[in-house]
Amino acid sequence: MINRDLVKKLSVQLKRDGVSALMVAPSGDLMFLLGHKPYLCERFQTLVVTDKEELFYICNRLTEAEAIGFMEGNKVYQWMDSDGFEATAKKAFEDHDLIGKKIAVNGTVRAFNLIKLLKAMDFEAVNGKDYLELTRIIKTPEELENLRKSSAIVDKVFEDIVKFIKPGMTEKDVKTEIARLCAVYGGEDCHGGIVAVDANAANPHYFGDSAVIGEHAVVEMDFGCTYKGMYSDITRTVFVGKATEREKQLYNTVLKANLAGEAAAVNGAWIPDIDMAARKVIEDAGYGYEFNHRLGHGIGYAGHEAPYIHGDYKMNLAPGMAFSCEPGIYIRGEIGIRIEDVVIINEKGETEVLNKCTKELIEIPV
Amino acid sequence: MINRDLVKKLSVQLKRDGVSALMVAPSGDLMFLLGHKPYLCERFQTLVVTDKEELFYICNRLTEAEAIGFMEGNKVYQWMDSDGFEATAKKAFEDHDLIGKKIAVNGTVRAFNLIKLLKAMDFEAVNGKDYLELTRIIKTPEELENLRKSSAIVDKVFEDIVKFIKPGMTEKDVKTEIARLCAVYGGEDCHGGIVAVDANAANPHYFGDSAVIGEHAVVEMDFGCTYKGMYSDITRTVFVGKATEREKQLYNTVLKANLAGEAAAVNGAWIPDIDMAARKVIEDAGYGYEFNHRLGHGIGYAGHEAPYIHGDYKMNLAPGMAFSCEPGIYIRGEIGIRIEDVVIINEKGETEVLNKCTKELIEIPV
Repeated sequence: MINRDLVKKLSVQLKRDGVSALMVAPSGDLMFLLGHKPYLCERFQTLVVTDKEELFYICNRLTEAEAIGFMEGNKVYQWMDSDGFEATAKKAFEDHDLIGKKIAVNGTVRAFNLIKLLKAMDFEAVNGKDYLELTRIIKTPEELENLRKSSAIVDKVFEDIVKFIKPGMTEKDVKTEIARLCAVYGGEDCHGGIVAVDANAANPHYFGDSAVIGEHAVVEMDFGCTYKGMYSDITRTVFVGKATEREKQLYNTVLKANLAGEAAAVNGAWIPDIDMAARKVIEDAGYGYEFNHRLGHGIGYAGHEAPYIHGDYKMNLAPGMAFSCEPGIYIRGEIGIRIEDVVIINEKGETEVLNKCTKELIEIPV
Repeated sequence: MINRDLVKKLSVQLKRDGVSALMVAPSGDLMFLLGHKPYLCERFQTLVVTDKEELFYICNRLTEAEAIGFMEGNKVYQWMDSDGFEATAKKAFEDHDLIGKKIAVNGTVRAFNLIKLLKAMDFEAVNGKDYLELTRIIKTPEELENLRKSSAIVDKVFEDIVKFIKPGMTEKDVKTEIARLCAVYGGEDCHGGIVAVDANAANPHYFGDSAVIGEHAVVEMDFGCTYKGMYSDITRTVFVGKATEREKQLYNTVLKANLAGEAAAVNGAWIPDIDMAARKVIEDAGYGYEFNHRLGHGIGYAGHEAPYIHGDYKMNLAPGMAFSCEPGIYIRGEIGIRIEDVVIINEKGETEVLNKCTKELIEIPV
C-alpha cells in the first residue's frame, strides 16, 4: 500500500530543496514507499513523486498488471518495447509540468536511461539517493521488531551451519545449506551470501564458490535474508581444525574491534567516532591498511542504506537507527576475518546488538 | 583474462564515434571483457577502456585484491569509504587525458554516481550501452557450444520438474526444486526464476512465490542458468488437471506464435519481420493487446542483450546470433501463458532451436 505519510514528508523535502520530483526505480526505496518491489530489468521503469504529492508510474507494458495493482488508481504510463520509453516519459513529465525543472534520481536509476531521458526532454538531473534513505533512517517500532526477527533467523542458521561444516565440502555446499536453512526458519529472499575459504576471504566481496574446505581451514560466512522486507546481515568466521596462534591473534583483534565498535555505538554518538573506536583497535595491532572498508552500513528495506558508518558520515546516532558493525582484517593471499552484527538504537535509546549467536572463536573438530 | 582483441575492436569503435572512453560497470559486459564479473553494490566501480586501448579500473579499496588480480598489471585506482570516489576518479581521468572529453557509459553504471562524477569534473556523458552488446552480438563457435550446453541443462530440469509438480505445492516449492536441479545438472548461477500460478502468470515478470497449486491450475515457469558464463532461458506453461477448452485454445495460439517466430528466424531475416510473424498469430486470434512485450532478446554473457527482437530493431539476422523467441498471452486477473526457446543462427547459417524439450500441451494428472 502506498505510504501517504511518506509521500507527504518527501514532497516537503523536495520543495525545500527546489527539486520538483524524485524518480524512484525498483529498490528498497520503492519497497518502502509502496510495500512492493517490482523486478528491474534493463527496461526503464520508475515511480515519480512530485513536490505536490502527486504520484505516477512509467513502465513497460509488460509490467502493466503489476503497476496498475500497486499504484492504487494513480496514473500508470506505459510504453511498448518497439516504441522505446522516451516519448511516453516526455508525455508524463509534460502532464505534470516537470519540463525544465530540477528532478532527482534515487540510487537505482540507470545512467544510460538517464542520458536517453536528458536527450528527449529538458530537465536538470540531481542526485536524490539520500532522500528516501534519510526518510527511513529512523525505523518504527514495528520495523525494529522485524529487524530483530530477521536477525534471529540468521542466528539460528549460524548455529546449525557450524554443525554442518566438514572438511571436503565446497564453498557452494555451505552456501546451499545456508540458503536452505534460512528458508526453513522463515526468511524471505534467502541466498547463500558469501562463503569464503582461506585466502578467498581476503576479498571482502568474494563471490566464488568452488574452493574446498581442508583439514585446516578458515571459513568466513556473510549472509542475510529479509523478514517482512527488513534485512538481516551477519558475518562469522570459523576455523576447521585447530587455529594457529597467528589466526587466534587476528581473530581476537577483529573481535575486540567489533566489541569496541558496539560499545561506542550509543545513542547520540558521533558516527565517525564509532568507526574510529573499532578502527583504532585494528590499527594499533598493525593492520590498519588491511581493514579496507567502512565499519558498517545502515540496514532496513535495503541491505545497505543510511546511516553509513565511516569517518566522513557526519551524523549522531538516534533512537530507531539500525546499522551493521563489521570490522575485518584482509591479508591478500593469506586470510580474511570479519565479524558482523546488526545493531539498533531502540525506542528507549538503548543499544541492542541483534545478533545473539556466539562470537567466541570456534574450532570445528575434524 | 583480458580479451585484448575485444579491447582493440572497442577502441576502434570509440575512435570512430569521437568517444574517448567507455566506462564498464560490473555486468555481462565486464564478464565478456575480463572473463570475470565482480560484485556490484552501491559503491562506484568501473573499468575504463579508452580509444587508445588503455585500460584502468576504479574501485573501492574493499575490491583491491580482486581487481589487482583481474587487471593483469593495468592500473587500479582505489578509494576508501570515508573519502568518497570523486577525487580518485578525477585523478584517474586526468592521468588519461579524459577531462573535457566525450565518455560513454555501459548499461549498469548508476545514474546517481554519474551525476556525482559530472559534478566533480568536466566531461560529456553519452549512452554506450550498445558498444559491448553489439561487439558480442556474433557469438564464437565456442560460445555457441556453451549456449547449447546451457540450454541442455534447463531442458533436463524441465523434464524433471514436470514429474515433481503436484497440487498443494507452493510456487516457492517449485522454484526451490528448479534451482536445485539446475545445480545438479551442472548449471552456474542457478535460481528458481519465475514460477507463476494461474492469474499470477498474467504478470510476465511476476516474482512472488506464495501461491498454492490447486487441483486445476496453470503453472508458468521461466528459468535459466549459465554454463561457462553463457545464459540459458526457457519458459514452459503446464496444466495441472485437465485444461479447459479455452485454456487449450490460448495455449495453442501461443505455441503457434512461438513456432511462427522460429520459422521466420532464418539467416538474413529482418528482425521486425520475425517479431511480426509471431505477433500476427496472436493478433489474429484476438489477443494482440494481451501480448504486451517484444518477441525476444539476445542472450549470451548477459541474460538480456542485443539483438532485441521487436518491431523497431532494424537489423538482419546473421550467423552467430542468439536470441529468445517467447510470445505470450497475459489476461489480467485470469491467466498467463508463455512459451520460450533460445534460438541461434549457427556457423553454417542454419536456425537451431536450442531447447529440445516438448512444447506439446502437458496435463499433469492429479
